[in-house]
Amino acid sequence: MQQAYAVILAGGSGTRFWPASRRLRPKQLLSIGPAAESSLIATTVERIEPLCPPDRILVATGAHLVAATRAALPQLPSPAFLGEPSARNTAACIGWATAILRRRDPDAVVMVLPSDHHIGDVPEFRRVLAQALASASDGPITTVGIRPTRPETGYGYLELGPETTAGVHVVERFVEKPARARAEAYVASGRFLWNSGMFFFRAEAMLEAIAAHLPELARGLDRIESAAMAGEAAEAAETRAVFPSLPAISIDHGVMERLQPIHVVRGDFGWSDLGSWESAWELGRKDTTGNVLGPSAIALDARNNYVQALGTTGKKRVLVAIGVDDLCIIDTDDALLVIPRNRAQDVRLAVEHLRDAGDEELV
Amino acid sequence: MQQAYAVILAGGSGTRFWPASRRLRPKQLLSIGPAAESSLIATTVERIEPLCPPDRILVATGAHLVAATRAALPQLPSPAFLGEPSARNTAACIGWATAILRRRDPDAVVMVLPSDHHIGDVPEFRRVLAQALASASDGPITTVGIRPTRPETGYGYLELGPETTAGVHVVERFVEKPARARAEAYVASGRFLWNSGMFFFRAEAMLEAIAAHLPELARGLDRIESAAMAGEAAEAAETRAVFPSLPAISIDHGVMERLQPIHVVRGDFGWSDLGSWESAWELGRKDTTGNVLGPSAIALDARNNYVQALGTTGKKRVLVAIGVDDLCIIDTDDALLVIPRNRAQDVRLAVEHLRDAGDEELV
Repeated sequence: MQQAYAVILAGGSGTRFWPASRRLRPKQLLSIGPAAESSLIATTVERIEPLCPPDRILVATGAHLVAATRAALPQLPSPAFLGEPSARNTAACIGWATAILRRRDPDAVVMVLPSDHHIGDVPEFRRVLAQALASASDGPITTVGIRPTRPETGYGYLELGPETTAGVHVVERFVEKPARARAEAYVASGRFLWNSGMFFFRAEAMLEAIAAHLPELARGLDRIESAAMAGEAAEAAETRAVFPSLPAISIDHGVMERLQPIHVVRGDFGWSDLGSWESAWELGRKDTTGNVLGPSAIALDARNNYVQALGTTGKKRVLVAIGVDDLCIIDTDDALLVIPRNRAQDVRLAVEHLRDAGDEELV
Repeated sequence: MQQAYAVILAGGSGTRFWPASRRLRPKQLLSIGPAAESSLIATTVERIEPLCPPDRILVATGAHLVAATRAALPQLPSPAFLGEPSARNTAACIGWATAILRRRDPDAVVMVLPSDHHIGDVPEFRRVLAQALASASDGPITTVGIRPTRPETGYGYLELGPETTAGVHVVERFVEKPARARAEAYVASGRFLWNSGMFFFRAEAMLEAIAAHLPELARGLDRIESAAMAGEAAEAAETRAVFPSLPAISIDHGVMERLQPIHVVRGDFGWSDLGSWESAWELGRKDTTGNVLGPSAIALDARNNYVQALGTTGKKRVLVAIGVDDLCIIDTDDALLVIPRNRAQDVRLAVEHLRDAGDEELV
């Protein structure tokens, strides 16, 4: 019987949630969004548990993040954590994890999931994932496409081809981030979905696709496989040796856009990639004047603000916003950010400024 | 020979600089404004030292503030600090301090000065004070009036009468906070000055004026004087007993507006009462985009903001403002305030809210 495995991609070093996110505390380790008790990655693992028990989950992250990631997921066994010796983008990471799973179970069916997204409707999410796993278990590599709700220019789109079985389509083509007018046409057409970054495949099918389209990556993975036969120490040494030379390319560019056919399951489950503080506000629970306020935040004659204290020392701080609208005010132990919601993407300016100034501990 | 003494009024429990100011850390104990190294009260004492050495200065404050005030003024001897058993407004406070000075020196000439103002041109300030002291030493109670620079409706005004000697006028009348149109007319006329809250008088003259216009206060002060003949302990006990029953009225209403003649010296020395965070911005040193930034503040694509970390723990915190204009962002150890500069007066809303919520330690 084919069994489902999960590879959780947790390598993000995103700066978009600064000052809460840092190099050593990336977004997936934060508690943001409406389910603010657990970290995003812990929520990700809890969400898939009915489909995939803890002992069939791998978490791929940067070597420098393994300790913190393990601490966020105490229910996972220690070998679940794969620390990439260097960041080589998603194709290398997915190929590496897939090869490990195939070694363990040649019939493995794998789902690759981001670790830092928000899902509003979890039962529907699980239903879609089960459908995608079923599609992949006896068919081509399958992805989940999200019904677009706005002409977003920051996402990739995929165009729907013919329906193969109920709810499953062939992907006609992938389109990288489109210009505004094109994105509007896509949304209006009803034939385009957002690329969710979730992939479902038999381990064997993915490794074949990599061999066909990314032979250099396939050779590197083969070297690690050979070393693994000599034991864990040899495998670890070869992984460290090989990884920096692997091609740094995304799975989308390296495999998905080159491969045919790809299947897609249509998803509509309150998805958000939580791309910025603005999306945290969008998803947050608002008071009657549109403010999303943390427990120690007070808004007086102020509307549509996102005000959160995210310090970790537990020291009580009160945040008071008076007479301001549409701001994000983010307070942490050592840094404060005030930025308009509609400029939330510019948080990177702060990170760049601090990095240039040599304030490494703040980024 | 007549000697000059100073009474520094340091009783303010102002809330206008929250979250930096608190009940136990009022404005005069803060370092705000362009001379941000010393507290306002320390700067006040330093400013008058050429006119009045430390051993001829009294500082009147609330009993609960004596310790913190003494810590801010280590150069003053311990008896310099008068702790009012209860707040009874300025007439009682000035009368009490004046009686103590007369007991010490029957010929004392006294200047009463606020502890929390900003003075831009200190040499000119000293020149004006010397002139006011001279006027008071052989004439009536004298005040300093500030040349108005805008039609401020939050201040008292005084109308100039005939000039008695060069630069010294009789006060025609005092006017409480006028409406806008009237304030504009006052400023345009050139015959009105702002009431600075500085008063100069022979101790004897002030106590006579109090006897004439505030007989109830005079009787209370006499009781303290009688007790003082029996020693310090008796004086302290009687002060505690008498103070709560003294009339609570300002020196302006109780004496100045009822007394004639009053003299006034015209002052033009870059005066500000530092009435709000807005005035701290006005006086602050601005960068090329109009921001007044504390050492740990960063403004990116942001204009005309006041961003200050005023924590006392020394823990490094960086404050980043991106894409915002005309805000005050004030960060302290346990509270943060974000408010538009032109709403700085509404800081009281925060203090009221926290007081209503029972957050006494934050106000």
